[in-house]
Amino acid sequence: MDKDHIKVIAFDADDTLWDNEPFFRETENRFCELMSDYLPAHTLERELLQTEITNIELYGYGIKGFILSMIETALRVSDHTIPSSALNKIIALGKEMMQKPVQLLNGAEEVLSELKKNYRLVMATKGDLVDQHRKLHKSGLGRHFHHIEIMTDKKENDYARLIGRLDIQPDEFVMIGNSLKSDILPVLTVGGFGIHVPYHTTWIHERIEGEVKHQNFQRLESLEELIPLFRLKRDTWP
Amino acid sequence: MDKDHIKVIAFDADDTLWDNEPFFRETENRFCELMSDYLPAHTLERELLQTEITNIELYGYGIKGFILSMIETALRVSDHTIPSSALNKIIALGKEMMQKPVQLLNGAEEVLSELKKNYRLVMATKGDLVDQHRKLHKSGLGRHFHHIEIMTDKKENDYARLIGRLDIQPDEFVMIGNSLKSDILPVLTVGGFGIHVPYHTTWIHERIEGEVKHQNFQRLESLEELIPLFRLKRDTWP
Repeated sequence: MDKDHIKVIAFDADDTLWDNEPFFRETENRFCELMSDYLPAHTLERELLQTEITNIELYGYGIKGFILSMIETALRVSDHTIPSSALNKIIALGKEMMQKPVQLLNGAEEVLSELKKNYRLVMATKGDLVDQHRKLHKSGLGRHFHHIEIMTDKKENDYARLIGRLDIQPDEFVMIGNSLKSDILPVLTVGGFGIHVPYHTTWIHERIEGEVKHQNFQRLESLEELIPLFRLKRDTWP
Repeated sequence: MDKDHIKVIAFDADDTLWDNEPFFRETENRFCELMSDYLPAHTLERELLQTEITNIELYGYGIKGFILSMIETALRVSDHTIPSSALNKIIALGKEMMQKPVQLLNGAEEVLSELKKNYRLVMATKGDLVDQHRKLHKSGLGRHFHHIEIMTDKKENDYARLIGRLDIQPDEFVMIGNSLKSDILPVLTVGGFGIHVPYHTTWIHERIEGEVKHQNFQRLESLEELIPLFRLKRDTWP
């Protein structure tokens, strides 16, 4: 990977800098318990996923949309016989999610402190504005970033716009994240670099089939490996 | 108002460039009808407002939070006896709101076309990321703006951050909007200019008591009046 031109390093946040998906899975499990009189967990999960995917265009990503999709699913699969106390419980589960502490992933703080010495760092995350601002605030990582971009989606034209706004060329941009679908593939398509740092669990809607092979692509096992990777670049500077 | 230094003109969007509040009021009316077996409209409105204000810190502004607050209020005031069909109806009301066409206010298009010839224009709106992006897209106004800022809140430090990011001084910034509380007062406090263009209805949570008197403040009756106001400035340029 020829990184000599890189000016901006952009980081995804959820499951790249801090834990996120496990909170959704944990809430989903509690939702399944709550609804166990109506459907077995694996069927209910499929119903919920279907509701979420249908609603994404209207609701976008984030906890509020997730709560609304749980409520809608509960009403539908119970054929409107769900007791309202269960619906109250769903709202409470959602509010609880919003108040979780932010748990940084290993190395997040050190990696940002180190890389910002030589690069402009950007946080590029999709999701709900309030959720993401709250997590950024709790994370204490905000001071490392030159720019925070909370995106409604992470498709090719979303990245093209971001790169344009940063006033750089695509080959001066590298995106680091856990989702091949959202953080890596669209960036490669628009001519940027992508570094995949997998997280132990990926939401089914973010999964893709197959392997990525591309000259601008690299896969690391952990965030910490970014430090030697980008130090190499400094050494090759004239 | 001495506007000679103005470089950036920022516009609020909801009820400044396009209609918004009437959709919330219309949905609230339909919510009150739906719940008329439990509480009279004026009492229910008060209950809903209370729920919304309590939830703003967690949910922020926007339609998804509004739906969740209606559901929570419906469960509470019915003492959990609300039929689930009514809850489904509330979700449907919310989705309907999200799909409303965007109705521009008189002069919005012409004013932006004209002012962008001499100023950097910014859209500075608070609300839900997905809602606001959708409305911006439907409005067709995006091409007039140099920068779009969707803010979680519009307090003094939010404006100070925005002004810093625009790389200008506070007295080079003017904010135009319908809410004295959110668009005008905090901007005046941080040293910017504020132009109030009232809308015919204001959400109770956005209302303030008293009059604004400040050398950097001006009140206009309509957006169109901005054109002569800022043309004056051009004439006074050396």
